[in-house]
Order: sequence, then C-alpha cells, then structure tokens
Amino acid sequence: MAEERTLELPEGYRFAAGYAGIRKQQSDDLALMVSDRPASAAGVFTRNCVRAAPVDFSAESLRRSSGKAQVIVANAGNANCATPNMAAVAEATAAAAANLASAPEEHVLLASTGVIGESFGESVIPGELPKLWQALDRTQFEACAQAIMTTDTVPKVRSCRIDTDQGPVRLAGMAKGAGMIMPDMATMLSFVFTDADLEPSLLQSLLVSAVDQSFNCITVDSDTSTNDTVFLLANGASGIRIDDESQGVFQDALNQLTRDLAIDIARDGEGSGKLARITVTGPSELNGLKTIAMAIANSPLVKTALAGADPNWGRILGAAGKAGVPFNPQLADIYVNGVQVCKAGMRADFNEAAVQRSMEADDIQIELCLSGGGGSSAVVWTCDFTESYIRINADYRT
Amino acid sequence: MAEERTLELPEGYRFAAGYAGIRKQQSDDLALMVSDRPASAAGVFTRNCVRAAPVDFSAESLRRSSGKAQVIVANAGNANCATPNMAAVAEATAAAAANLASAPEEHVLLASTGVIGESFGESVIPGELPKLWQALDRTQFEACAQAIMTTDTVPKVRSCRIDTDQGPVRLAGMAKGAGMIMPDMATMLSFVFTDADLEPSLLQSLLVSAVDQSFNCITVDSDTSTNDTVFLLANGASGIRIDDESQGVFQDALNQLTRDLAIDIARDGEGSGKLARITVTGPSELNGLKTIAMAIANSPLVKTALAGADPNWGRILGAAGKAGVPFNPQLADIYVNGVQVCKAGMRADFNEAAVQRSMEADDIQIELCLSGGGGSSAVVWTCDFTESYIRINADYRT
Repeated sequence: MAEERTLELPEGYRFAAGYAGIRKQQSDDLALMVSDRPASAAGVFTRNCVRAAPVDFSAESLRRSSGKAQVIVANAGNANCATPNMAAVAEATAAAAANLASAPEEHVLLASTGVIGESFGESVIPGELPKLWQALDRTQFEACAQAIMTTDTVPKVRSCRIDTDQGPVRLAGMAKGAGMIMPDMATMLSFVFTDADLEPSLLQSLLVSAVDQSFNCITVDSDTSTNDTVFLLANGASGIRIDDESQGVFQDALNQLTRDLAIDIARDGEGSGKLARITVTGPSELNGLKTIAMAIANSPLVKTALAGADPNWGRILGAAGKAGVPFNPQLADIYVNGVQVCKAGMRADFNEAAVQRSMEADDIQIELCLSGGGGSSAVVWTCDFTESYIRINADYRT
Repeated sequence: MAEERTLELPEGYRFAAGYAGIRKQQSDDLALMVSDRPASAAGVFTRNCVRAAPVDFSAESLRRSSGKAQVIVANAGNANCATPNMAAVAEATAAAAANLASAPEEHVLLASTGVIGESFGESVIPGELPKLWQALDRTQFEACAQAIMTTDTVPKVRSCRIDTDQGPVRLAGMAKGAGMIMPDMATMLSFVFTDADLEPSLLQSLLVSAVDQSFNCITVDSDTSTNDTVFLLANGASGIRIDDESQGVFQDALNQLTRDLAIDIARDGEGSGKLARITVTGPSELNGLKTIAMAIANSPLVKTALAGADPNWGRILGAAGKAGVPFNPQLADIYVNGVQVCKAGMRADFNEAAVQRSMEADDIQIELCLSGGGGSSAVVWTCDFTESYIRINADYRT
C-alpha cells in the first residue's frame, strides 16, 4: 500500500485533537475540525434503525441548515448511544462548539464511536473544547485521524489535488475502522474536506454516489453500527466552483479517495492479515451482482479459506449461490489471483500448490464471472477471518 | 439434552450402512433406507441456486412419481456436486437401487454430503449397494445416522409415538450437521419416517410447515449448502390413516421431532460449545420478527459474545437494528437467561457478574421484546463462535 508522503490539505480548514478522558487509556479521544467559513455540507448515515444521538443530531442539523456546516466534533471511546442523556450530551457539545465558532448550532456536525449504553457527563466534551479551539491548526489533520481511532491499528488519511480548467482544488479525507469492536460496537466514520465551491444539493448527490462505490462496498464482519457516518464539507476557499464541466473529474477524484479510505479500513479489519478484492461479472443488473459479491465477502467459510490460503472455489461458488440472485452455475468461472480455478461450474485444471502460495500474500483477487465473459461488474473488498478476530471479540469482557 | 434411550421405530422400514470408500477415513459412508412398500414421500431442498446432482435427481423423482418413494440412498464424503459426471453418478446409483428393490427409478431418492468439485466413479456406490441390501434390518437406523455424519461429533436421532384415536403410529428421524465443513462444504440432511398413512400432497404440506419452524430456524454460520435435503416418508404400515381429526396431533409431533433434530444440529455446530435460543417478540408480522432473530443469530459479534459469556446487550440491539425491519429501539427490552439487561433501549439495572456466570452454561436464552410486551414471537437457535471454528475451517487445506 503506497501511502502518500505529503497530504494535499484543502485551504481554509483547521484541526485539533485532545484527550477529554472519555476513553480509559490516555490517548486523544476528541477531534475538532473547523472551516474558516460556513461550508456546504453533505452527510450519509447508518441504515441501522438503532441510531446514536450524534447521528440524529447531525441529520437534523443538515436539514435545518439546508446543507451548511462549519464545525465537526468527533469523539472516540463512547458511542453516545442508548443512554438516558445521549441527546443532552449531543446538545451540550453542539452548543459549546457553536459558541466558540460564533456559528448557529445547526452549523455543527457530531460523530461518536465507542462503547454503547454507557453514559458520560454532558460537560465532558464542552469542558475540553476551548483548549482544542486554541490549538486549531491546519497541520493537525492527522492528529484528528489518530484521535478517532478505536481498534484501528493505523490512522487512515488520503488526499489529492484535482486540476480543473480554472485551477487546482484539494480533497483530503480521514476514516476510522469498521469491524465492530470491543467492548461493544465500533463504527465506520469518515470526514472529507474540499476547498472547492459546490452547492449543497450537488455535494450530497456526489457523496451518495461516492459512498455507494466505496464504504458501501466493504465488509469486515457484516455488522452495521449505530453510529456510521460520512461527512463531506466544501468551503469554496479555493475560489473555484465545480461546474458542469468539472463535475466529472471531481466525482472521479472523490470516488477514488473514498474508495482508498474504504480499502484502508477493510485491510485493517479486526484480526485481519489479508485484503481480498472480490469482483463479480455477469449479465444481471449491478445490484444483483453486488448482492452476490457481498454474500461471498461475508461468508465465514470464504473468509476462513482466505486466512488458510486455500483456493477453495467450492466455498466461493456455494456462497454466491445462496445470495438469492439466480444464475446458471454451469456458466460460472472463478479466478483466484488471476488463475482459473473453476471453469463452467467445475474444477479447472490448475496448479493448486502455486495458487496456495500466491494466497499467502496480503492482497488476494477473487473474480467470479457468471456470463462466460462480458456484462457489468461489481467490486467489493473484505478481509480474512482469523482466530485473532475471535480473541478480540470473545475473550474481552465488558 | 435428554436423549431418548429407546427409539420408537416405525413399522415396515429397514436400514443398512456400509463403507464404499468415498471418504478417506475408513468409517461408514453409505446409508440405504428402504420401505417394504411404496410410501408417500415429501422433500424439501436447498434454496442455493448451485445444486448438487442428488438434489436435482430427487426433486425430479418426486415430480415424476407424484410423491411416492421406496428407497433412500445417502452418502457422506462427497457432495456429488460441480463435477462433470455428477448426473451420471446419481443415475447409476438410482438405477442400482431401483434394480435391487424391483422398484421404478423414480421411487429412489438420493442425498449426498461432503467435498464438492471432486469426481468419484459411477460404479462406487452401485458396487457397494448389494452388500447393504443383504444387510437391511430395522435395527440399523442409528448406523445410518452415523454413516451420514461429516464434522458432526454425535449422531442425531429422534423418535416418538403418536396416539391417534385409531391407535398408535410412529415417527423416527435422523439428521446430520449444519456448519459447512472441511475441506469444502457440508450440508444439512434429515430423513424422517413414519408408518402412518398420508396422501403425498398432505405429507408435503406438513413437511414444509415443520421445516419452516425447525431446520429453517437454525444457523451455524449463515452458509447454505448445495445439498441441503429433508425427506419424509409415510408408508402406511401401521394401517392408520391420518385424517382431518388426527392431522393436528401428527403435525405437532412432526414439528417437535424436526425441531429437536434442528436443535441437536445447532448444538453440535462446528467448534461450538453453547446453544443459544433467541426469541424476538413484537407487534410486527412473524416474518419480520424472524428476520430480526436471524440477524442476531448470525451476528459474529453476538456469537463471539456468547463464547465469551458477555451479556453484551448493545451487540444484540445493534444486530437487531441492522436487520432492515424497522422498530422503535426505545421500546426494546432484552433478557439474557431471564435477567433484564436492557430496558426501553437502555442499560437495565442488573448484576453483570451474575449474568456472566449464568452464560457459562451450555444453554443460553436471549429474549428481545420490541413492543413493551405482547405480540407474536419468532424463535431461532444458534451456537457460539469460537477459535475452534476458525481452526476447523481455516487451518485445514484441501
């Protein structure tokens, strides 16, 4: 994985991280992210019908502000979910941030990750925010990426420069890991910032498209959190407006950036050592192909075969077949790391030892072709399923 | 688990098991089950669109015979799936069995479990069948249950006597484990026999109802095999016909027997030490409640919490919320082994150490009530998720 060495940070944003004492181990658990001016804002939230207070609060903020925001406050260590005072914690946090920014409360967005069902005081975050406000600096982007980590083993940041006809704009994003975590559940959070100028409604539709081909195409353990949130802010500080002409290149860059962040998350799945890219090609409509790809990606049998470097095409074909999307198995071809292991629904003639060796690598490519060639493709990413996952999630006690 | 000591075997059936050399370790891998006369027959098959040859063959037999059968041939060690000669193997097996029984070929039903994608010779089973035919005996029922085992640690047999107004009839069933297995996939197989007299169409509808509340309510790892099969034969040897009056008591007994077999399978899930019964009660329609119960039962986070004896109600609530069936989390109550751990969507006041201790037992009861009391209920069974599951499925190589 080639990490960018230097981040291309967008203009007009400042960041700060600190420790508010929400998580037990003493490392940063609070991130403050501020635009110098009100920005267009878009958000995508969990589809779980059990939702944390910050999710409800932020969705309501975006509605009331018609897609504007200036401040994001995110914390790790507590999901602020399923507790009696969760709404009060969200309200107090937003009020304190709005006060510091001299902004209306609906220009504040919130996100939380960590244990659910455990209360913490309403003044905990407000008490720490003034110190962070003083420390705001455009260089503290990665410190924020670090502060929102839970079971992640590495912070996840990505950035790029987009050259439009009118000049360059910048895009930078951070994410934290999927894989629901000890002692309760974790969350997928991602915050993306650009200094391009975009209308809120366009921004929202670009974000929905991007999420659909990135964060919605990864799985660690098929569990969906109460707190999953993606925000995209566009503050226009570059002075460059994304118009009909540059919209395509902006969407492409946003797709690439969110996809890179999503893959970073899958690669860092709990207890995981390997990333697998699963491509399903066929004549069906794309939704059906993605359903099949996700059935393969979530199959415990496929994921344990990845861990064991076992080119077990029977498990792949079986997982595809149970997805509920009909296909003719006699047209199914399967390739593992480019080697055909199944031809027309039956074992292909391949060197098993060689494919096993290729599966010892960190990156595994699985391709299922349902049509004998051609058609559209769905791509999803997953990780292997190891004894470490069980240890992380079973052996720890609340 | 109170196993019956003596089986109530139905009249007019004989059984035999033997070793055909299909599996490597030398233990019985072939079961022959014969009714003395043509019996009414019903079958339920996997919904996986990748289907093994015996599944296709048996479905076609039942169609051609209008629900009659006299012989079941089942083998372990090879699924007879996704190979060039799978249909030929099925045809040759059925022809040999039909010849021995002097029955039409469509009165033969087939089932297989084991590795997929590996061929075996068309004469392997036919070569062994004459020996089994000679050995047929009504006492060999449990030997057949043993012969169809794969990763099962114990054979699963259940029986009962049903006292109708006209006299007693008997019901006996065997099953083998779910949990897709090394080196490829396994299968859920179950064969149930009665000496009651029933019309094929009634028998089929009784079996579908029974399967829906038994085998379709268990999960080990959410993977569905290419070979899953349940057969029910009714040969009428008791001379007692199930009529409108006795239909209810027969259905109840069949439900109980298949449910007991299904629970035996869940309890014997790969690497599992614990059985969990998950009950979801609410005002929604039953299908929605079962979807929620299955989301909980298949959640790796819930299953690892079971292994760790962790009363982690947040994971249960989160898994329920992601099922796609809307409910109001503020009305959700959760009980673990009878102790309320979540009240109105928030932590209840409970003794955590005591609940943890109660979760060290082999049997765990989880109840989620979505309505504040009342409504209908869905019940499913699952097992815990341990490092042994990973070892069984990852560390073994094809």
